[in-house]
Amino acid sequence: MPTIFDVANEAGFSPKTVSRVLNNEPTVKEETRAAVLAAIARLNYVPSQSARQMRTGQSNIIALISDEIATTPYALDMIRGAQAAAWKYGKLLTVINTEYDRHIEQRAFQLAREYRFDAVIYAAYYHREVHLIESLPDIPLVLLDCYEKSGQLSSVVPNEVQGGFDATNLLVQRGHRRIGFITYNEPIPATLGRFNGYVKALEFNGIAFDPSLVGEEDGQATGGYRGALALLQRDDRPTALFCWNDRIAMGAYDAIRKLGLSIPEDVAVMGFDNQELIASQLHPALTTMQLPHYEMGMWAVEHLFEQSSDVRQDAGSHPVNHKIECYVVERESI
Amino acid sequence: MPTIFDVANEAGFSPKTVSRVLNNEPTVKEETRAAVLAAIARLNYVPSQSARQMRTGQSNIIALISDEIATTPYALDMIRGAQAAAWKYGKLLTVINTEYDRHIEQRAFQLAREYRFDAVIYAAYYHREVHLIESLPDIPLVLLDCYEKSGQLSSVVPNEVQGGFDATNLLVQRGHRRIGFITYNEPIPATLGRFNGYVKALEFNGIAFDPSLVGEEDGQATGGYRGALALLQRDDRPTALFCWNDRIAMGAYDAIRKLGLSIPEDVAVMGFDNQELIASQLHPALTTMQLPHYEMGMWAVEHLFEQSSDVRQDAGSHPVNHKIECYVVERESI
Repeated sequence: MPTIFDVANEAGFSPKTVSRVLNNEPTVKEETRAAVLAAIARLNYVPSQSARQMRTGQSNIIALISDEIATTPYALDMIRGAQAAAWKYGKLLTVINTEYDRHIEQRAFQLAREYRFDAVIYAAYYHREVHLIESLPDIPLVLLDCYEKSGQLSSVVPNEVQGGFDATNLLVQRGHRRIGFITYNEPIPATLGRFNGYVKALEFNGIAFDPSLVGEEDGQATGGYRGALALLQRDDRPTALFCWNDRIAMGAYDAIRKLGLSIPEDVAVMGFDNQELIASQLHPALTTMQLPHYEMGMWAVEHLFEQSSDVRQDAGSHPVNHKIECYVVERESI
Repeated sequence: MPTIFDVANEAGFSPKTVSRVLNNEPTVKEETRAAVLAAIARLNYVPSQSARQMRTGQSNIIALISDEIATTPYALDMIRGAQAAAWKYGKLLTVINTEYDRHIEQRAFQLAREYRFDAVIYAAYYHREVHLIESLPDIPLVLLDCYEKSGQLSSVVPNEVQGGFDATNLLVQRGHRRIGFITYNEPIPATLGRFNGYVKALEFNGIAFDPSLVGEEDGQATGGYRGALALLQRDDRPTALFCWNDRIAMGAYDAIRKLGLSIPEDVAVMGFDNQELIASQLHPALTTMQLPHYEMGMWAVEHLFEQSSDVRQDAGSHPVNHKIECYVVERESI
């Protein structure tokens, strides 16, 4: 690989002159500049980023450090959204998974610092509280799909309450008054928020909340099957099921079929998460809520770089803890 | 952020001495070294990687540059495998998606070169021929789940023929002689290879190949539904369906149910790809072939770094074009 010294030899100038050309210093004579650039082209010389960066201090790279979002299908749209926004700002997004290994996390932060990356996005696979290795990192940082208890770091998460509300409210709008809810049996933010939204939507529509219509199950198809079977074998069975996620909905489909009922004629089914592989391939295709993964990924980058954004201006230098709305993806199950 | 000059001031030595300590030069007096290290600790000084790398020339980073493997669920295990192997060698894996944008691809290669990354893995979302921007890149490179026509670059891909053979052969071992094959209607390596394996397995077992048992469809559930319905409405319907992928199998399930048949009693169903979200959640769970994504990801890194591996020794400096076997994931559908 040619060095700056090779270029200097080839051009017949000193390395210092080559360096001045590379730095775009205005005092270099035009014919000197032309000769150096010609030598660079002939040798196919690539200035080392190490050297360039020592001059400019900027790398134009963003690291997205996450637990496992690039190795599990669930939340890949966060990467897509962050990528799209990064490219808009001329930044390259590079993704490092830690698989929950603190040593890898530490090394990833170290990399970002040593290479003077512009910023770090710290992303979680699902909406949850995180504990960073470094509570106040010396590099611009935003939390994606997660938050830190102190609220001292900017973050973006889905609006779970609004999502649960809109899912339930849509079922009511379609004429349902008895709406079962098969939820997840772990108290994570998505569970608490969506349940809260479900209750609020019933209340908003003047429907009494009936705790016996809520089943808590594991988050898999088997849980959905069990939960749906229990709710639908009652004499006063619900006419609609709101499922905490699409896997639960997939299991509910099997229970509904087993009971000889049709979707959506006998039982409407509403999912959550819009996991494409499930939701669009089920028969009938599943109406569900889209988590704003893509939008959250974009927001994270925009928050870091869009100096003129309203969000940034409003917030001044304070951290912003932002929530983004979930939205309905309508297919054929309600 | 403190610089080497701050450390020098703090320690009371010259920047050159600080640099000698950072370079672990043996001629530095022990008390000088201790004073400099203490100053580094007090200031929380992090030597810039730019500077360190200009000394060592090694970054211990591998870039995995891919079209879309980190943004689509299909082949994420390639990242997991490459990560695991990279960590084994003390390397950090960083993933850059190009989304098929040649400018981004170019910039990713440039990044890898400028930062003196140890190596690049160029990965494709599905097994296919690729055309690199740079035919002979000046950085160690291996192709993952893809190949280049000339064969001049080392590559690793799944053994599609063996996969198609083993899938079909397993159905024969379970007593099936009339085996339908619902395949994909695009002539990509996975289509050609799996078809070839299907025909070879029939031949191996003394079963005449019957072209009317092969349906070509799109690769989605709708295609599987259509293809299965056509094959199963014949008087001499097959007793088993080998589906080119799990989405096709998912559609075949619906067709089988619609015809009032049971899986596996009336019709056995064999998938391909082991897309967890589909295969494990179907009812009954789908027996399918696992693409060796994880193993291919590992192989790519090992090929780059394991100087002592047999593969490397056999090959000398010649490129290696390696195929890895697919394997059966047995569930309940055959």
